[in-house]
Amino acid sequence: MDAIAMLADPWPFRVAWPAAMQGRGREGDGVEDEARLAALIGRIEPLDEGVMASVRARQRRLLKPPGSLGRLEELSILLGGITRRVRPALARAAVVVAAGDHGVTAEGVSAYPAAVTPRMVEAVLAGGAAISVLARQAGARVRVVDVGVAAPVAPHAALWSARVRPGTANMALGPAMTRAEALAALLVGAEVVAAEVAAGVDVLLAGELGIGNTTAAAALTSALTGAAPAVTAGPGTGLDPAGVRHKAAVIERALAANRPDPADPLGVLAAVGGLEIACLVGLILAGAAARVPVVLDGYITGAAALVAAGLAPPVRPALIAGHRSAEGGHRLVLEALGLRPLVDLDLRLGEGTGAVLALAVLRAAVATLTEMASFEEAGVAGPL
Amino acid sequence: MDAIAMLADPWPFRVAWPAAMQGRGREGDGVEDEARLAALIGRIEPLDEGVMASVRARQRRLLKPPGSLGRLEELSILLGGITRRVRPALARAAVVVAAGDHGVTAEGVSAYPAAVTPRMVEAVLAGGAAISVLARQAGARVRVVDVGVAAPVAPHAALWSARVRPGTANMALGPAMTRAEALAALLVGAEVVAAEVAAGVDVLLAGELGIGNTTAAAALTSALTGAAPAVTAGPGTGLDPAGVRHKAAVIERALAANRPDPADPLGVLAAVGGLEIACLVGLILAGAAARVPVVLDGYITGAAALVAAGLAPPVRPALIAGHRSAEGGHRLVLEALGLRPLVDLDLRLGEGTGAVLALAVLRAAVATLTEMASFEEAGVAGPL
Repeated sequence: MDAIAMLADPWPFRVAWPAAMQGRGREGDGVEDEARLAALIGRIEPLDEGVMASVRARQRRLLKPPGSLGRLEELSILLGGITRRVRPALARAAVVVAAGDHGVTAEGVSAYPAAVTPRMVEAVLAGGAAISVLARQAGARVRVVDVGVAAPVAPHAALWSARVRPGTANMALGPAMTRAEALAALLVGAEVVAAEVAAGVDVLLAGELGIGNTTAAAALTSALTGAAPAVTAGPGTGLDPAGVRHKAAVIERALAANRPDPADPLGVLAAVGGLEIACLVGLILAGAAARVPVVLDGYITGAAALVAAGLAPPVRPALIAGHRSAEGGHRLVLEALGLRPLVDLDLRLGEGTGAVLALAVLRAAVATLTEMASFEEAGVAGPL
Repeated sequence: MDAIAMLADPWPFRVAWPAAMQGRGREGDGVEDEARLAALIGRIEPLDEGVMASVRARQRRLLKPPGSLGRLEELSILLGGITRRVRPALARAAVVVAAGDHGVTAEGVSAYPAAVTPRMVEAVLAGGAAISVLARQAGARVRVVDVGVAAPVAPHAALWSARVRPGTANMALGPAMTRAEALAALLVGAEVVAAEVAAGVDVLLAGELGIGNTTAAAALTSALTGAAPAVTAGPGTGLDPAGVRHKAAVIERALAANRPDPADPLGVLAAVGGLEIACLVGLILAGAAARVPVVLDGYITGAAALVAAGLAPPVRPALIAGHRSAEGGHRLVLEALGLRPLVDLDLRLGEGTGAVLALAVLRAAVATLTEMASFEEAGVAGPL
């Protein structure tokens, strides 16, 4: 274990997470929670066009042929519009890894046993998982939110315990959870964002853990885009072609059993989603409301973004796709959201690994915007 | 100028660059230099298959579904094969920006005047150019090699002055330089690598500066791949469509005037290349000989890699493409070399910007390889 460092915050937050978070469950309260969601959505505003125009004007003066920094320039403009800052800062980054289990694993849809979820939560917190390593390298802190792991997880200072229920029900037989439970899990995500914002976070990186959750992501994508499960289901952690066909058949059964209505994104989320996916929906909405950029990871966070954009269309222009997953259904999600990912490296791990790799690109966009000299400052002649 | 920091080394090298480098020119010596090139090529060995097998085996034990880190896994294996280290290190990175001028600018092939080259060299050294900013962010040091700028450049501790001649001749009328000059500029690149290796560098990032050098890159690509100038010529720093057509016609004239033989890469380089491109050929060959990874940037460094692979085919498997340039001809170079870039962000600036962005991906590959826990260490069950 010599190569495994402990998980430690790379930079001091202004305040710690609420001590009360430890071991606190969260019960759904349908009526009050519906009002909380409506209030959250109401706080999401459009991108700031004035700041975007200022950033665009600055880009034109910088020491380079106009447009030659390509997507870095576009990103700097978007980040200005999200944060309302002409010089956005991305120093304080937090990866939020939402974790939950899936009853549908009873149907044999994953290459790994469900018991892996709590052990992976502990591995992330111990510092030896891929996301732990990549976050450490990027100077980002990691927070895990247990919103619905089925088995006990060892306490940890970086673990937010807000288990709504111990894993979802088997969606092949009926709803994965109640509407109130989906809403409660969503609001956990919003509470996490509120705590991180109070602690001074500049950028949120969305991650997830949950054996079986590519099945939920595929079911959500089918329900919300109309694509057939044969297209949205992929190998996940490593199914063979027969396994993928079985997974698609299970999703067909789940859609037939639940008949989710795409006009009711919260209903779709409850029927065929997951607790950690609901938490990510809340993270995305609350990030947008707080004007903190949220970087998506792959297929699962993308499915959460589909739900979030369904609940609150103004969230869409603020979405940032971290990477293109090797899981084929992710392409449909990206097309539906009009997103082009920043990183394309055939990853299919999740955890937030693609989001944290994209952080380097976002920081490059901000650094060139804020630190480059202008033609005038450098005394260099412009175009002929 | 408040946003412009001075260029400073982010990490201490074991030894400084040779003090004698300042103001030293380099005269070509045909016969001795041919022998030096042959010796350099002779030192290039194949990738180390044994180390690659060890890295591959370690990747299989790490806490993730096999292959789920995609290209990060492939890269970690390649870096093992290049460096002969099961745990490669990439901490000490140096961007080498080769600079030179091009006589063909007399034909009006660039959107900017040739006088910009020395000013851009100074801007890079002053810390305000895009590459200065991105290298600072990545913790890489920057070295500029003046191998053929036409006008005087202010001295600087990070400038290697080894001007072979003050810019090339106009390739539309005859050879850009003599074979001895091309060889001399190539060997400057090898000398720079030797100095950097002695100083403890772990990874070299190839960059360039030189108004007119996309014309040279396009001419080299046409000469070496057979593609028409209409395909290899692009807008460069910002030509309009009529300007691009004119540039292609100038390249046609250069090819007709020189009739370069693709079986003689050094002859092609001398006829239609550039001094900074020749320097980059030497950098690529010497990096491979020293088993130090060299990360290519865009079109110009790619054209240099085409020449290097022509001179020494064993260099090819060790090439790492940093990014995919928005300049269309770069695609032909990547196809000819069998390379897939790590970053694809519509950049078309050069300077090494795409290479330094790719450094984050290379470091992520090494960090996951060397710091992740294994399934066994984390006590997590494997696949069902």
